[in-house]
Amino acid sequence: MNQAVLHTGCGAEAGLISVDEALALIQTHTQSLAYETLALQQVLGRYLAADVHSPIQLPLFAQSAVDGYAICTAGEIKAGAQFELIGEIRAGQRAEISLKAGQAVRIFTGAPIPEGTATVARQEIVKADRQQIELTAALNPHADIRDAGEEISVGQSLAVRGQKLTVGSIAALSMAGISHCEVFAYPKIAVVITGDEVAQNIEDYRAGKIFDANAPLISAWFQSQHVQVEVIHIADEKQAVLDLFNCLKDSFDLILTTGGVSVGDYDFVRPAALDIGFQQIFWKVKQKPGKPMLFAQYRRPDSTSCYLLGLPGNPAAVYVGMQIYTDTLLKALQGQTPPLDWFSAVITHDLKADARERFLRMSAQFDKQGKLQLTSLSKQQSHMLSNLMQANCIVRIPAGRPVQAGQVLQGLFIQD
Amino acid sequence: MNQAVLHTGCGAEAGLISVDEALALIQTHTQSLAYETLALQQVLGRYLAADVHSPIQLPLFAQSAVDGYAICTAGEIKAGAQFELIGEIRAGQRAEISLKAGQAVRIFTGAPIPEGTATVARQEIVKADRQQIELTAALNPHADIRDAGEEISVGQSLAVRGQKLTVGSIAALSMAGISHCEVFAYPKIAVVITGDEVAQNIEDYRAGKIFDANAPLISAWFQSQHVQVEVIHIADEKQAVLDLFNCLKDSFDLILTTGGVSVGDYDFVRPAALDIGFQQIFWKVKQKPGKPMLFAQYRRPDSTSCYLLGLPGNPAAVYVGMQIYTDTLLKALQGQTPPLDWFSAVITHDLKADARERFLRMSAQFDKQGKLQLTSLSKQQSHMLSNLMQANCIVRIPAGRPVQAGQVLQGLFIQD
Repeated sequence: MNQAVLHTGCGAEAGLISVDEALALIQTHTQSLAYETLALQQVLGRYLAADVHSPIQLPLFAQSAVDGYAICTAGEIKAGAQFELIGEIRAGQRAEISLKAGQAVRIFTGAPIPEGTATVARQEIVKADRQQIELTAALNPHADIRDAGEEISVGQSLAVRGQKLTVGSIAALSMAGISHCEVFAYPKIAVVITGDEVAQNIEDYRAGKIFDANAPLISAWFQSQHVQVEVIHIADEKQAVLDLFNCLKDSFDLILTTGGVSVGDYDFVRPAALDIGFQQIFWKVKQKPGKPMLFAQYRRPDSTSCYLLGLPGNPAAVYVGMQIYTDTLLKALQGQTPPLDWFSAVITHDLKADARERFLRMSAQFDKQGKLQLTSLSKQQSHMLSNLMQANCIVRIPAGRPVQAGQVLQGLFIQD
Repeated sequence: MNQAVLHTGCGAEAGLISVDEALALIQTHTQSLAYETLALQQVLGRYLAADVHSPIQLPLFAQSAVDGYAICTAGEIKAGAQFELIGEIRAGQRAEISLKAGQAVRIFTGAPIPEGTATVARQEIVKADRQQIELTAALNPHADIRDAGEEISVGQSLAVRGQKLTVGSIAALSMAGISHCEVFAYPKIAVVITGDEVAQNIEDYRAGKIFDANAPLISAWFQSQHVQVEVIHIADEKQAVLDLFNCLKDSFDLILTTGGVSVGDYDFVRPAALDIGFQQIFWKVKQKPGKPMLFAQYRRPDSTSCYLLGLPGNPAAVYVGMQIYTDTLLKALQGQTPPLDWFSAVITHDLKADARERFLRMSAQFDKQGKLQLTSLSKQQSHMLSNLMQANCIVRIPAGRPVQAGQVLQGLFIQD
């Protein structure tokens, strides 16, 4: 045979890197982006670029923990004790009253404790009229008072560099009077869907094209991360792919592609990227789905970079790729290189061996002893997605040996 | 004493309802909203109002699972077998070729299998030139062919009424050509923060006011649900609260308030709501934090309703209230009344008894056997939020008895 070509690219041929190697290469080759200062309303899901210390103490001043009465007395506080009622202090008011022995002031939750206060009597143990109050139960000194600074002192660390800004952390920062914080910039992302086979309408579909899952999948995934992305569709033509990458490489931090990344005659993502100066960091991972995955870097003259993550076109490979690799890469671009948040759980049945590490869509349920139990779902092939209607996690199955019921595996919960 | 008042409202007085009772009352008293039809780009996090059946089969046609060669032969397929190469079929093209015995066609992943195909040889086991190909390994019949309809048949159920639309389900629906779906409408929500004590600026803060955690907390929580809400601040004045509710009750599905819901002299949420025709469904739950919580319903003449969920003003009560009660109510308004998604996990230490059921912020970590282990955090008081920097879950502690290390408890992971 003339011009004979022996194609390569088999499922588990020698030289493929492992999932852990691929993740480590993403983490070590990715430079984090610049910092930016944003209002707290804009930082959900972002990572702090600097430690945050509290500018105030919390509580700011000694305050009542209840609706009740602040009372002044030197001695034991017994049921039946009576006090002269000399005024009231509401939350948000200053405590301009100073109590003398035998006096009480009406006080509300969060209102400042006036000078001279021995304790606070919650209103449930008080009989009151306009001039005086009487306790219906004995009371300890310093009851129901929140001391100034008991939670946080001035200058105390509130949050540390690298911390993810969640709903709870945003609330806690607000409470300390923080209105802005310095965070890692979020990458500017171009999503490129390659392929001639995507139907744009019902006629295309009748002509042998297929409906696209990848663009809606990626858009929804970024939406779940509170990010809107633009999606570009491009045909399987080398020059078109090359021109597009050439145009994107100078203004985007990340080009995320689907399809066109294997060794087929119409797979132009890798050759186009290499032609315009991207350097391959890795290509092909010993995994299923998603073997022919590409990670490459283009260094701009100003020493910043554009990264290219090329996911295969099969939708299950895209789904897994987003949860495992895009997530890792987006964190690395934001200065974060923790391991993924794997859970440990017990598989309830055997699984056959496979030469590649696999990511299987499964259902995870806690048993009554607090142990997480995994059950695999049918229809795991890379062109199938319908089991995502039932799956709540992706489970990582080691390569090369069968899995036995009762074995502990690692997985990721699928959020959103 | 004249005009004596014995205040009520102690921590665990008789007559308070339990957490489960409160959740059940929300579920049974909430009417679900109307349906709406939305594009798939808009449905992340929504619930389907109708079953979805596939309008097409998937795969739509028999297709190649690999880049390779479709070959036609009647007999056994051995290494060394040669075939005449008569053309190629790309993904997105029709299979207009019909193979005869001894012929092969170049074919790519996802491309339609031509008539006459016995099997597909992946390119890794093929030596090819322009006119013919030779197999380097034996091959089974019908290898690497995805059969038409093997995943989904026409009319097959894809998703069911009530199903939450996740990233994965949106992708799976797109793949079946679904572009729109009928979902439960999302409630129109007014968030009302009551209280004179909230600082708007640094001068307010110096004058005895405090920085607000509740508005940023609630805004960020809704942001995490992909919803933007308007937040209204209002002073502790009954007429102002009453006028506001009166104005909101006709055009909103839900008024969510913080503060002003206890029995203090400046707690106007409940009296104002009752004055303008809201009916109390419950008030006060035997829980910590968040005891003086109110749930009320205003029935409009057209038989639709405006609901009012009144959370206490302490930020920890607001945080827990959002995760437990607002979440349950938003689901009920969208036709969903499942229990909350509690996990089971083992506590690593003892806890003292409390008369009320508690929600504690904890750290949950899987051990190597797949068991989830809980460790409580300090600073659990209702005016403290800083431990949300470390917490990844809220754990439910039964009332009235101590908890022992090793006991199984229920909790909710904190997302975002």
